[in-house]
Amino acid sequence: MEQIPILKVGRCLLVSIQIDMHDKLAMALQDDLTQKLVDTRARGVLIDISALDLVDSFIGRMLSNIAAMARVLDAQTVVVGMRPQVAITLVELGLTLTGIHTALDVDKGLALINRLIDDPDGGSGAGGAQ
Amino acid sequence: MEQIPILKVGRCLLVSIQIDMHDKLAMALQDDLTQKLVDTRARGVLIDISALDLVDSFIGRMLSNIAAMARVLDAQTVVVGMRPQVAITLVELGLTLTGIHTALDVDKGLALINRLIDDPDGGSGAGGAQ
Repeated sequence: MEQIPILKVGRCLLVSIQIDMHDKLAMALQDDLTQKLVDTRARGVLIDISALDLVDSFIGRMLSNIAAMARVLDAQTVVVGMRPQVAITLVELGLTLTGIHTALDVDKGLALINRLIDDPDGGSGAGGAQ
Repeated sequence: MEQIPILKVGRCLLVSIQIDMHDKLAMALQDDLTQKLVDTRARGVLIDISALDLVDSFIGRMLSNIAAMARVLDAQTVVVGMRPQVAITLVELGLTLTGIHTALDVDKGLALINRLIDDPDGGSGAGGAQ
């Protein structure tokens, strides 16, 4: 079962990360996601991390990589469901999620992506756009 | 990380099952899901099983239980993303997913739930309604 499902919801792809990430799984996710972006012509990627109780530099880099890949494929990436403790730890560790927008939950994330699609440069008002 | 995230998407709750289910996890999922149905007043439950390569009688019973619980809480349950091999095995094992509607993917599942909400008794046209 070592595969992370990618669900199409409207114009977006939704990924819910529930299992411990390691190198190979992260690579497979990046492959699958970029392939599915091309196949479905989705315009957004929603990554739910509500199951993660720690976001370390490895996960952070993976998220940034996914956002960068999605961007060149003309899609916006929003991370949703971050736990309060994860936000605290991120700041304490000095990690920045470069190029990643954040939203509280999936509904708000979908709304943010729709705004970003319509106005790619003006989306920094909501969430933690960087 | 032994907790299955429940995501609110519009009027529905979306559950993506990615890890091996066991008794305790299934009980926890039922508890979380019913609690969240009440908290969010959601009208539908979408269960994505695209990561499962086997649906045995235990998973089948859990899905049926969730559907029955959701029904008394005024919500419709649709299972999405079933692999072809899983469908074959289900029939070969003689398992029936009692009370469960099915749809090919999340988008079709959301559309089916919206139809079922508007017309709870007439939804047997699409998917594998029973």
